[in-house]
Amino acid sequence: MKFEILHTSPKSGARVGRIHTPHGIIDTPNFVAVGTNGTIKALDNALVEEIGIQLMFCNTYHLIVQPGTHIVKQGGGLHKFIKRNLPIITDSGGFQVFSLAYGSVADELKSKGTKKHEGSVLKISEEGVLFRSYRDGAKIFLTPETSIQAQKDLGADIIIPFDELPPYHVSHESLSVSLDRTHRWEERSLNEHLKSPNNQAIFAVIHGGINADFREKSCKFLRDLPFDGFSIGGSVGKNKEEMVEVLKASVPHLPKEKPIHLLGIGDLSSIEASIPLGIDTFDSSYPTKAARHGVALTEKGYLNITKAENQTNFAPLEDGCSCYTCRNYSKAYLHHLFKAKEMTAFGLSTIHNLHYMVKLMEKYRQKIALGLI
Amino acid sequence: MKFEILHTSPKSGARVGRIHTPHGIIDTPNFVAVGTNGTIKALDNALVEEIGIQLMFCNTYHLIVQPGTHIVKQGGGLHKFIKRNLPIITDSGGFQVFSLAYGSVADELKSKGTKKHEGSVLKISEEGVLFRSYRDGAKIFLTPETSIQAQKDLGADIIIPFDELPPYHVSHESLSVSLDRTHRWEERSLNEHLKSPNNQAIFAVIHGGINADFREKSCKFLRDLPFDGFSIGGSVGKNKEEMVEVLKASVPHLPKEKPIHLLGIGDLSSIEASIPLGIDTFDSSYPTKAARHGVALTEKGYLNITKAENQTNFAPLEDGCSCYTCRNYSKAYLHHLFKAKEMTAFGLSTIHNLHYMVKLMEKYRQKIALGLI
Repeated sequence: MKFEILHTSPKSGARVGRIHTPHGIIDTPNFVAVGTNGTIKALDNALVEEIGIQLMFCNTYHLIVQPGTHIVKQGGGLHKFIKRNLPIITDSGGFQVFSLAYGSVADELKSKGTKKHEGSVLKISEEGVLFRSYRDGAKIFLTPETSIQAQKDLGADIIIPFDELPPYHVSHESLSVSLDRTHRWEERSLNEHLKSPNNQAIFAVIHGGINADFREKSCKFLRDLPFDGFSIGGSVGKNKEEMVEVLKASVPHLPKEKPIHLLGIGDLSSIEASIPLGIDTFDSSYPTKAARHGVALTEKGYLNITKAENQTNFAPLEDGCSCYTCRNYSKAYLHHLFKAKEMTAFGLSTIHNLHYMVKLMEKYRQKIALGLI
Repeated sequence: MKFEILHTSPKSGARVGRIHTPHGIIDTPNFVAVGTNGTIKALDNALVEEIGIQLMFCNTYHLIVQPGTHIVKQGGGLHKFIKRNLPIITDSGGFQVFSLAYGSVADELKSKGTKKHEGSVLKISEEGVLFRSYRDGAKIFLTPETSIQAQKDLGADIIIPFDELPPYHVSHESLSVSLDRTHRWEERSLNEHLKSPNNQAIFAVIHGGINADFREKSCKFLRDLPFDGFSIGGSVGKNKEEMVEVLKASVPHLPKEKPIHLLGIGDLSSIEASIPLGIDTFDSSYPTKAARHGVALTEKGYLNITKAENQTNFAPLEDGCSCYTCRNYSKAYLHHLFKAKEMTAFGLSTIHNLHYMVKLMEKYRQKIALGLI
């Protein structure tokens, strides 16, 4: 992996760059679409490539449970298995497994209902986490080493070390203990990775909750290790203001020449706030989930497709939009499809929102290049 | 509408033809995909056109209830509203409304759960059927005239007169009474249609259950009216053998120069049995529903994608298949998508099955032309 910085803003931390990976270039800043199980919900990967999504985020935890990373490896790795020719990033599984343990459940799990997962974490130790698969009840031991091995089986362009995800409401002492363990786990992950780098890049995860000192400590610990990039993880606060403080306490302590990813954040206002602080990539299921709930992203703001006013609006979701959905279909038809509970609605609205994100990030790159950010 | 017969089999009732409609040609024999609410489930209409589905079946009953045919009319008619440039056929709504009344519920309604519909038929009279919308509780009066008016609003290339659907288990006397009423309703429908034909064709519905005399009577009554084509409706029996007898009792009594559609039948063995008997078009949700249940149609027979043996089968659903799904994805990936409950699975398997039907019907046309059927 190579990170090329094309332009650095003279007035903020924003920069325009290009991450070169074995499967192509990721222009930065960029939005990373979430395809948990190896697909963006309601779309297929060839179509997602056409939309222009340069980096797709897949979840190792889910792929361990179904179909099993050994199956993916047997199929030639994740790119070949899911038929994606462009870059992929995988996480470590830590986020999901600790969401189960601590009840600080990710949006993503929320939407699936959490009850079936309850009690599935059997043991947490220095070694790692033992949990029970929600699919077949099998015991799975996730450790820094097994997480990296799973990510080697998957073969994504960018991988992430195993970390602990402490909940938002945690004592100073517990957070400190957790941070140190996360650092040990990340170092173990890195060492495991370095045994067979396989052209994969590994991005450290900065932790420390909303404590600025801990964030600084985390940056300083991790930047001294040979990671290829960094990501901001853990709890980044309960609102955008706290998130901005977390980023301000972190990014300045990271080397400028390496890319920085913000984990699990990708709503429009957070992206806007984070780009000037030096964030290069964002992953979030927000645009795709919003689409499935009938919310289209447009220049004029959020458009609720299911509102009665759209019943007879025969214009596209956004005038002038060049996406497949807007070129073909009207708000009235999409409104009808949502009302008729046709899953076609989910696919078409998702196409539009992903296209919107692709165009939005293009505009951010241009604005930075023009000196406007 | 013009029906052009290109070839008639010297050894069976099979023929190869072309139905010319305002939105293009339907090569016959052909399969008609069912897009109840104005979409094939899990696909979008531009894609369905690409697959080569020449005729799509939409259900007037569903479109009356949601979004309302007046909305579709306001949007420029069904072709424009749903963005389909190729031919469309709509039914009268009779089938659905009588399924509610008599409990002889169509597969299609079954899969949605019927409980919410119970008791929604308020009154059946010579005039028509009063029922309550399951969407908003509004009372809707469906008569030969209102059904045709709804179908005028929709503007499909081929429309169907309002008929009564007696259940399979019905007395000889009741069937006789129903048949006469259906004939009166079909004639009223035709008269309503002829007030403003609008380039639409209207296909009569032959009734009579599994009684050969009634079928003959129905053919003789309806063939004397200026219908553009015919369809075989009502109960065609509880198995393929009964269906074949119904077709043998009907088709010979219909004029050879007009197309004949078989309503709601489209499983592979019924198609095979019906083509030599002179059926030109078939509509069925079978191939699309099977796809959503993980059953792929292949030259070698039914392939159950969710079977464990496909977990590590990295070949496409069918070797050599030129469909989008087979060009891009493996059985193992589709197996995974089904197991992970990703709706992407439904779209990809539906593409394959519709493509299979398109190719299958091409082969039938060729076989007839070659004198093999």
